[in-house]
Amino acid sequence: MTRVLYELCGIDESLRFSPFCWRVRYALAHKGLDVETRPWRFTDKQALAFADHDKVPVLVDGDEVVTDSYAILRYLDRTYPQAPLLGDALAEARGRFFKHYAERALAPAMMRTIIMDLFNAVHPDDRAYFRESREKRFGRTLEEFHSPAKGLAQLDAALGPMRGRLEEADFLDGDAPGGADYLVFGNFMWARCVSSADLVSNADPVHAWVERLLDLHDGLGRRAMRVTDIEGAYR
Amino acid sequence: MTRVLYELCGIDESLRFSPFCWRVRYALAHKGLDVETRPWRFTDKQALAFADHDKVPVLVDGDEVVTDSYAILRYLDRTYPQAPLLGDALAEARGRFFKHYAERALAPAMMRTIIMDLFNAVHPDDRAYFRESREKRFGRTLEEFHSPAKGLAQLDAALGPMRGRLEEADFLDGDAPGGADYLVFGNFMWARCVSSADLVSNADPVHAWVERLLDLHDGLGRRAMRVTDIEGAYR
Repeated sequence: MTRVLYELCGIDESLRFSPFCWRVRYALAHKGLDVETRPWRFTDKQALAFADHDKVPVLVDGDEVVTDSYAILRYLDRTYPQAPLLGDALAEARGRFFKHYAERALAPAMMRTIIMDLFNAVHPDDRAYFRESREKRFGRTLEEFHSPAKGLAQLDAALGPMRGRLEEADFLDGDAPGGADYLVFGNFMWARCVSSADLVSNADPVHAWVERLLDLHDGLGRRAMRVTDIEGAYR
Repeated sequence: MTRVLYELCGIDESLRFSPFCWRVRYALAHKGLDVETRPWRFTDKQALAFADHDKVPVLVDGDEVVTDSYAILRYLDRTYPQAPLLGDALAEARGRFFKHYAERALAPAMMRTIIMDLFNAVHPDDRAYFRESREKRFGRTLEEFHSPAKGLAQLDAALGPMRGRLEEADFLDGDAPGGADYLVFGNFMWARCVSSADLVSNADPVHAWVERLLDLHDGLGRRAMRVTDIEGAYR
């Protein structure tokens, strides 16, 4: 049985930067499950028609087609109970908070910081779509939205609770990494793959946690292509 | 056996506003455990000498003396396993994040908003201590630190993840309230008891959640004395 994950790619087919796809890559590795990834671009809606969905990640696992990163994590826990990601009832309810923390507290702050780098990493054929959809969402141009000073200040404030947690434990989920770590770490992979911006101080416990996550699962994150690896691509 | 909880009080012995004590009050009610509360003031360090501690809450449960609100919640789960508050391993690891979220994201934002109301609610004999210790912590005077405009903007940003969660569930812990809710709700009781400031819009899902928590356990929070209930006390 081949397991296939459709992942967003950028200017290079191997440049994979979606935070949602990274959650899934780490979740699969956590469970020791192999996967074959397929590059996908924003405007290639047709390629996902089989899933009745227009965004990645899409996981095809034998006869099952699962969309949405959080739903995929739940599906994996249900289907492969070893090494729980979200866990049961109470743990899962709390796991959900980390999804919102990543998406509503961290992502907007990172977005303001790396938006122009992100735009640069998007495939040329996708850029018009990317600009139009994001400018509509932000209510202003990408250039106006771009503000590393504001973004980093906002990120610094948003990281407070994480810092508190990581001062007392190696991972958000305690002594070993789990679903909460992957839900949040996806954002850091997103920023890392498209930008060389330093998001946190090297002395920050969040920095040490990022380094630990990069090394996990045989360096899954550290081995990933970054835009800075592509000659002439980073401006 | 009498179970006793030492709680911070303010200008009136019945005015109880410590966010940490409120966590414990809700936790005890959640487990259906009776408690007798004893008012305590900041400067009354001697009264807690028996616990080898200088802060409330302090819970005396038969022969056990337990300090620190989070440690008390864990103690209660261990000793009275019915109706888990923090739950086991993974749930507990994630529960811990809510403590930091309450203390590092919400509390500083609320503090900037209500600091002068809080100062006004502190017992006159405690005010010099309160001013000195807080001014040292903030690195400026209470008056300089006070900024409802900044505090409320900061709070609005910090509530993002909570809003996301409460748009999909009635409680942070899902369909029923649990330890995560109480860890965070303590802050809202703190603000409510000393101030009449509106912290969130009435249309905010966080507002509806606060109302639900106030009603819980026979209106435990709603029945609590507020400074506005004391004639001439609110300025």
